[in-house]
Amino acid sequence: MHENYLTKLRQEVDAHMLKLVEAEAIPDQLKQSMTYSIEMGGKRLRPILLCSVLKALDQEVEKGYQVAAALEMIHTYSLIHDDLPAMDDDDLRRGQPSNHIVFGEATAILAGDGLLTHAFTVISQDELLTLAQRVQLIQELAQAAGPTGMIAGQILDMEAEKRQISLTQLQQVHALKTGRLIEFAIVAGAIIGFADEVVLSKLRRFAAHLGLAFQIKDDILDVKGERLIIGKPVGSDVANEKSTYVSLLSLTEAEKRLESEIEQAIYLLRELPFNTDLLQWLATHVKNRSH
Amino acid sequence: MHENYLTKLRQEVDAHMLKLVEAEAIPDQLKQSMTYSIEMGGKRLRPILLCSVLKALDQEVEKGYQVAAALEMIHTYSLIHDDLPAMDDDDLRRGQPSNHIVFGEATAILAGDGLLTHAFTVISQDELLTLAQRVQLIQELAQAAGPTGMIAGQILDMEAEKRQISLTQLQQVHALKTGRLIEFAIVAGAIIGFADEVVLSKLRRFAAHLGLAFQIKDDILDVKGERLIIGKPVGSDVANEKSTYVSLLSLTEAEKRLESEIEQAIYLLRELPFNTDLLQWLATHVKNRSH
Repeated sequence: MHENYLTKLRQEVDAHMLKLVEAEAIPDQLKQSMTYSIEMGGKRLRPILLCSVLKALDQEVEKGYQVAAALEMIHTYSLIHDDLPAMDDDDLRRGQPSNHIVFGEATAILAGDGLLTHAFTVISQDELLTLAQRVQLIQELAQAAGPTGMIAGQILDMEAEKRQISLTQLQQVHALKTGRLIEFAIVAGAIIGFADEVVLSKLRRFAAHLGLAFQIKDDILDVKGERLIIGKPVGSDVANEKSTYVSLLSLTEAEKRLESEIEQAIYLLRELPFNTDLLQWLATHVKNRSH
Repeated sequence: MHENYLTKLRQEVDAHMLKLVEAEAIPDQLKQSMTYSIEMGGKRLRPILLCSVLKALDQEVEKGYQVAAALEMIHTYSLIHDDLPAMDDDDLRRGQPSNHIVFGEATAILAGDGLLTHAFTVISQDELLTLAQRVQLIQELAQAAGPTGMIAGQILDMEAEKRQISLTQLQQVHALKTGRLIEFAIVAGAIIGFADEVVLSKLRRFAAHLGLAFQIKDDILDVKGERLIIGKPVGSDVANEKSTYVSLLSLTEAEKRLESEIEQAIYLLRELPFNTDLLQWLATHVKNRSH
């Protein structure tokens, strides 16, 4: 049941993202590069979280589509820039050629810049929201994605490559690099749904546990996902000598930690005075996902 | 008199830009890279225009400092990304090593992303402005800087390199690449100063003429500025076979065109019901500047 609902949500957000780019007078090459990365798809975890919070608050999820699309544009830009030769130098993304492989580095840089900037146009123009909501959402998003948020995480992650870092440092990198946008997704749902301060504060704590769980699971999948495919080399993190929850904690301990984070996340949800079934299902799904 | 005033304005905006970055919990390397490009200086034309409009409207210029700083952060990010090896591949900027030469490409990309994103944090948090002003400014800025504005101009400029384009195409490239942010500077002053629609519309037309004049002058300086220094090669535009106002119109015709654009800009200013001395002086300065 939840699966079908989420598939529909994903399609709605995808359609909104595409429309919000395609309707604009953007030069052909630039527009193609932007839509290429949008159409690559993905789990759309952040938009789904945003809309699921709205649903839990008994609000129309449609009110969240534009902000969800803007948020996913920012996630998409971050992947385009991360894949660049000067950064992680990844030729493949989700099994397809990376943006710069198809369009060249210069266009990929500009497509990333374009998606990032356009996200703020989209929120500023969202007429389903009050002016106060738009300002608050823009402020939260710019801080989550900016040089004290996601970008800080990206540079700390680069600095941490090929050297041993502590578990605390690893947690800080991930709290910034992936955690802040996941937190924004949940906070944005609360802002759009007019949640009060108590609810907002609990949802922020839920988001912190969920974001951490998401990253631990990623690290586990990098080891276990690969192991299932006989004959393939071990995970890319191991090959890159990257510090991960598995390398710092052991696989067994990482799995225990994942379990505990999801438990705490669900505990927080149960304290909320509304129906959090969908959010609980999503938290469990983050733990059990196979990719 | 105007010179001293503008020097003071420039210092105020510089101080605001630096403070708005230095006060944030940004990782060292990233913060150094961001402040390096801020401290490189520059004409600060856009902040000066914004503040000069406020002054013309008899408003406190202090009300414009944060937005002026945000605008210049976006201009600064665009220079960092333009200089990257994959883009214009410039090792020098204002006679100093480009950002990526000092900090490496990865950090330069992230510093650009950081300045772009932080600009929106700054405007969203500007408590001297109403919520409506903040939303309108963010929308205007994101559109001016985004994939239908400055970024569109950048990709069209890249596509135009090493091939002959028409005067109309050249004007379109510049209207987007440099014109839109110059227009935003002037529109932002009007929004912050609560100008009415009639004034705003005249100021937009003034901005269009001024932006065009600015670019024609740049092209003239690329030829004439170099000629004055005996023994140096001819301008970089000629070397790069770039279409310019000078190459498409001839030097004499470009100078006539510059003269005419400034005349029209000043004519529009004279129609405004307030003291536009400073703005008129700036327009004349754009025409007469030697660098």
